Amino acid sequence: MSLSELLNDLVTANHILAHEEVCDAYGHISVRHPDRPDRFFLSGSRSPELVTIDDIIEYDLDCNPIDQKGRAQYTERPIHGRIFKSRPDVMSVIHNHAYEIIPFTVAKGVKLRPLLHTSAGLGATIPVWDIRQKFGDTNMLVTTLAHGDDLAAALGKNRIALMRGHGSAVAGLSIYDAVHTAVYLKVNAKLQAEAMRLGGEITYLSDGEIAEMQKQSQTGHGRAWEYWSRRAGATK
Amino acid sequence: MSLSELLNDLVTANHILAHEEVCDAYGHISVRHPDRPDRFFLSGSRSPELVTIDDIIEYDLDCNPIDQKGRAQYTERPIHGRIFKSRPDVMSVIHNHAYEIIPFTVAKGVKLRPLLHTSAGLGATIPVWDIRQKFGDTNMLVTTLAHGDDLAAALGKNRIALMRGHGSAVAGLSIYDAVHTAVYLKVNAKLQAEAMRLGGEITYLSDGEIAEMQKQSQTGHGRAWEYWSRRAGATK
Amino acid sequence: MSLSELLNDLVTANHILAHEEVCDAYGHISVRHPDRPDRFFLSGSRSPELVTIDDIIEYDLDCNPIDQKGRAQYTERPIHGRIFKSRPDVMSVIHNHAYEIIPFTVAKGVKLRPLLHTSAGLGATIPVWDIRQKFGDTNMLVTTLAHGDDLAAALGKNRIALMRGHGSAVAGLSIYDAVHTAVYLKVNAKLQAEAMRLGGEITYLSDGEIAEMQKQSQTGHGRAWEYWSRRAGATK
Amino acid sequence: MSLSELLNDLVTANHILAHEEVCDAYGHISVRHPDRPDRFFLSGSRSPELVTIDDIIEYDLDCNPIDQKGRAQYTERPIHGRIFKSRPDVMSVIHNHAYEIIPFTVAKGVKLRPLLHTSAGLGATIPVWDIRQKFGDTNMLVTTLAHGDDLAAALGKNRIALMRGHGSAVAGLSIYDAVHTAVYLKVNAKLQAEAMRLGGEITYLSDGEIAEMQKQSQTGHGRAWEYWSRRAGATK
Repeated sequence: MSLSELLNDLVTANHILAHEEVCDAYGHISVRHPDRPDRFFLSGSRSPELVTIDDIIEYDLDCNPIDQKGRAQYTERPIHGRIFKSRPDVMSVIHNHAYEIIPFTVAKGVKLRPLLHTSAGLGATIPVWDIRQKFGDTNMLVTTLAHGDDLAAALGKNRIALMRGHGSAVAGLSIYDAVHTAVYLKVNAKLQAEAMRLGGEITYLSDGEIAEMQKQSQTGHGRAWEYWSRRAGATK
Repeated sequence: MSLSELLNDLVTANHILAHEEVCDAYGHISVRHPDRPDRFFLSGSRSPELVTIDDIIEYDLDCNPIDQKGRAQYTERPIHGRIFKSRPDVMSVIHNHAYEIIPFTVAKGVKLRPLLHTSAGLGATIPVWDIRQKFGDTNMLVTTLAHGDDLAAALGKNRIALMRGHGSAVAGLSIYDAVHTAVYLKVNAKLQAEAMRLGGEITYLSDGEIAEMQKQSQTGHGRAWEYWSRRAGATK
Repeated sequence: MSLSELLNDLVTANHILAHEEVCDAYGHISVRHPDRPDRFFLSGSRSPELVTIDDIIEYDLDCNPIDQKGRAQYTERPIHGRIFKSRPDVMSVIHNHAYEIIPFTVAKGVKLRPLLHTSAGLGATIPVWDIRQKFGDTNMLVTTLAHGDDLAAALGKNRIALMRGHGSAVAGLSIYDAVHTAVYLKVNAKLQAEAMRLGGEITYLSDGEIAEMQKQSQTGHGRAWEYWSRRAGATK
Repeated sequence: MSLSELLNDLVTANHILAHEEVCDAYGHISVRHPDRPDRFFLSGSRSPELVTIDDIIEYDLDCNPIDQKGRAQYTERPIHGRIFKSRPDVMSVIHNHAYEIIPFTVAKGVKLRPLLHTSAGLGATIPVWDIRQKFGDTNMLVTTLAHGDDLAAALGKNRIALMRGHGSAVAGLSIYDAVHTAVYLKVNAKLQAEAMRLGGEITYLSDGEIAEMQKQSQTGHGRAWEYWSRRAGATK
């Protein structure tokens, strides 16, 4: 895949996240430079549904723009840069506020866990990061490298870190993988809340099942990508 | 009805299941060959909303393609082949992950039962099948004939088998009947969850009512099919 | 308003009920003949979203068609004919299965009551009718004059009768009034369920408030009708 | 920004409130005259989705039209006039019945509080006003200056007053600020209800966090406005 195709996929991923209601006015997705692991691509400050190829900015891992192109920037780009820095395996990062996941970020002692087979990508452990623990009362935004490093440390080797009263950071092996994980994170949160209200004990995926399913994890385009991109208006 | 018309209806059924949100990126519907009960038709691997007539593949009941046409295949086609094999009365099978039904597949001891008159097609008993019981930790997918046979055995003489942490298999007397049952399975699951939360004892349909309503079961096109197919974009 | 305008409004009302999700594939709305109180108009058997002016059939109050025009008929037209017969004040009847109201038809001892000012049209008392009480196990459909008379008796002088495991019958002073009541019946059911789950005692509208608001009840076109009809695609 | 641009934004704000489902057939938004603090602009009686520039009427703070232009008026304009009178800092007022907030207006002892960072604009305290306390049984509408003054007194120095069984009044520093607050009021209500049902103690935003975030409050156009206005059909 050429860099140009990859950046087109990044634009499409923005539109998918909007159309599938993972993002509303806020949220963003990045991809690591395929040839320079110390660089990544992220849109300038714009709602995901409206992002175009011209909005994409190249960054170093300290979140400095290589060429800002006169565009406003997301203040929370340290979420991306510092996860890319700490996790060489990660190729794409999504920050989102999907409504279904917020309750799990604020309800003490309630753990989000995968119960649906398409949600195996969430992994067995999903930590919750609270910016207040280290930084006290803030405007909640991840605007400094120190904030980003603290979030990346909370993420550890996992796929997802929930962010208290804010949203989540999703780490994927590819744009495709990050989008799939973010969509089914949202779906799983909704379904777990519903299942909890039915009153019976819940059967979650076992660690063994999660491991078996993660063997299938795809880094290329698949059935879901074709579907989501077409729904989001991509013409091919 | 000609075979050509039947296959066009199969394509429309795929689009209806997507539009009515019974399926998302995943799920599939098959129809038995009207002249050869040892054959069935199913799309190649594609999201239901995108299926075209050219995607349809003919299979034998061991799930071997008669002519694969160079297309990728659904790995879970044993759901279809083995239900057709064990149930000569069944003419159409739907596999789906409708979000509303998932909680009932994972909440122990909570039984899904029809409470709405249009949901009488669900039948009085809806078993829950768990692949883990016989096969241990797997990737949850019904990819072998043994998996399919085990699911078909759990289905028994019923209309629906729920699949733990996964979705459901719906067995219909026609494409129309399968689609109607799958839509109102989803609706009933949603309404039963809502009713359970109101706190009073729930009045379900009685066995006698279910029997009376099933006498009306239609295998042809009806009011709902006209409505759903028009909503899904069918031009006639 | 001419008869022709009234019947055009009946068609628009069908489309509104579909668009606002009061009806899905099923449900219907009728209007009494403005000059002959022993007659009413109702579509032939078709989903509300698809009804056209050519589908409208004139009926007497025993539900016999004056001119069937070769069309299939709704089997549940006795809901309309027998409410018009027993309630001279009623000019329009809606039968619907709106999902939000079904839980209140099956949860014993849980009463639906208006809590939102725009829902005052529901009235202070909303009886629940169960076809099983008088007729035993049936297919749940109101297909005979005896069924219709029993439902009308349960409705009494109220605006709405819920139907167990089935839906509701809404009696309005005009097409506009019936549509407004049916929409806010659905909304109120949803909001009451949500409010009950918050855990505090609920403040419902008082009888005095309901009486004050019903003084404003409009029988003509208003702000909501303009909005709903435009959303449903009406061009004026 | 010229007066003409401001009024165009007022029209767009109406469309956004409809599209984002803050308003249905009912609800309205006003803006204070930028040069005459004793005047404000509000549409004539029409659903927000349908409001055009020609519908806008100028009012004094006693809610008398400067030029009624032959249009019907909202009866509840005292909500706007009397909040503008008592709160010189407020430049835009929204009255809405968003479904998600109604349960919090009727469930005794349950307090709506911001738990999501984008909802910090709601403020730390959200009072609930009940028209019945001072005026007894009414039709619930805020139709007199006395009603409006009582509501404004309940609002006090806060951003939002909930209205029992009715909706809310939102006071903003600009059209943009009022719209942003109304959208995230709705979102927060939904998420708080969901979080309460998960069973754990909820972590709300701290007073310090709210204060930090309110420092960022924007009175101009931002990322969310671009997104919402494009979704609502605005062409620029």
